[in-house]
Amino acid sequence: MEADAPVWLNGALVRANAARIDPADRGLLLGDGLFETICVAAGVPCHADRHIARLRAGAALLRLVVPAEGTLCDALDAVITAHRMVDGVLRLTVTRGPGPRGIMPSGEQCPTVMVTAASLPPAQGPIRVVIARSIARDAASPLCRIKSLNYLPSILARIEADERGAVDAILLNHAGMVTESSAATVFLCRNGGWLTPYVADGALPGIRRAVLLEAGLVREATLEPDWLFEADALCLGNALGLRPVSHVDGRKIRQDEAAIAALAGQR
Amino acid sequence: MEADAPVWLNGALVRANAARIDPADRGLLLGDGLFETICVAAGVPCHADRHIARLRAGAALLRLVVPAEGTLCDALDAVITAHRMVDGVLRLTVTRGPGPRGIMPSGEQCPTVMVTAASLPPAQGPIRVVIARSIARDAASPLCRIKSLNYLPSILARIEADERGAVDAILLNHAGMVTESSAATVFLCRNGGWLTPYVADGALPGIRRAVLLEAGLVREATLEPDWLFEADALCLGNALGLRPVSHVDGRKIRQDEAAIAALAGQR
Repeated sequence: MEADAPVWLNGALVRANAARIDPADRGLLLGDGLFETICVAAGVPCHADRHIARLRAGAALLRLVVPAEGTLCDALDAVITAHRMVDGVLRLTVTRGPGPRGIMPSGEQCPTVMVTAASLPPAQGPIRVVIARSIARDAASPLCRIKSLNYLPSILARIEADERGAVDAILLNHAGMVTESSAATVFLCRNGGWLTPYVADGALPGIRRAVLLEAGLVREATLEPDWLFEADALCLGNALGLRPVSHVDGRKIRQDEAAIAALAGQR
Repeated sequence: MEADAPVWLNGALVRANAARIDPADRGLLLGDGLFETICVAAGVPCHADRHIARLRAGAALLRLVVPAEGTLCDALDAVITAHRMVDGVLRLTVTRGPGPRGIMPSGEQCPTVMVTAASLPPAQGPIRVVIARSIARDAASPLCRIKSLNYLPSILARIEADERGAVDAILLNHAGMVTESSAATVFLCRNGGWLTPYVADGALPGIRRAVLLEAGLVREATLEPDWLFEADALCLGNALGLRPVSHVDGRKIRQDEAAIAALAGQR
């Protein structure tokens, strides 16, 4: 982040180097908060309503007070305007705010609301992934279904991928089934149709995932890891884009170009 | 935290209201860091060596760069001196520091190191606890064995406890066995001996736990939840103290005073 980049923090735009997070913020101390990564196209945040709905669902689980949708949309728009952003990425972070020592949230909550901007990552070709050995996703946990600040499982998986010469890792659940990658939904083409893991199997309810399901381009299934190697095509997708997978654990994956094009056509 | 309380932040003492955490800190954005809660007695941090060793074990798993033990001890001492602390609590937090957008840590790491002070919580009598229904501990995860900033499982358990009229919750693992409470080790007296769950069953390797195991006052066992109700005594213990449990899920627990006194005698 540039030192003078405008950041929305608790109701006002400030420069990044002047934005101050309190050292008592529970987001910092305990990972007590949520976030959304939102794609901006032609100056408009994509699927802002869906992102905010997911944030609010997470907030309900965590008993976290979140500003009204209008307030959050205004914050997104303010950052887009301040950056003169046409295409880019916003990150909306909401924490429980500063609190006294201890695990239990105090009755008074003064949430920290922050929106930061970044450039879209450059479009890249097909990527190499591994199946994570160091960490599994706990599909039974309600935390698996919200986008919280507790991202160490993904960080561990990504470090493992890097150490094994790949750019991402696919995590399995404790039953050994496919869940998602460190930050993207798995889409697998098999027998002519696109499949994606159930939320109950440990997939985060991703926004692109929801859009593709509703469009009828993808259906939910329990994905066995062997299916990754047998796929006609395999993609990782999130709010920022869709990337084909070229290799899993060093083994080449077929890339059915027509199938990938059909999936990529819907945003 | 008082606004003018001295805080150690990245090599210097500053006032809490002047201490600034960068909005790009990965501790805030992704829970990418570790912490230790350290008891201070007679002006000395208790078991500082053990706390720092645990922090370093966590850092090894996360590939996180942590300052040398001497630097960390100096920081603890500086905060104790600045607060003229005789008895109290220190929290040592180490995050991966600010980083660019994304899950994967960048090659250059500039960790955030922070030490804050608090008063010892007042000694209280026996507490009511519940067995958490909303969340289980994922004993298979390596993150279960380090004290990271990903504390939402404990926060969810504590919120549940509060909503059910208790002050803490005991979490089970996916096999239904006892692991620990939201922020303390479980010690259970059965057939005249004190037992505590295995780390492999999902217990954090607590400092008090280690001291009591080494002193031969406690031994490890897999604890069935029914044993909680049948216990001669039940205590929750962490770096800050040992608290007897009076009720589990509303059912009264025996409190063998002699057994509790024996456990509380060793610090």
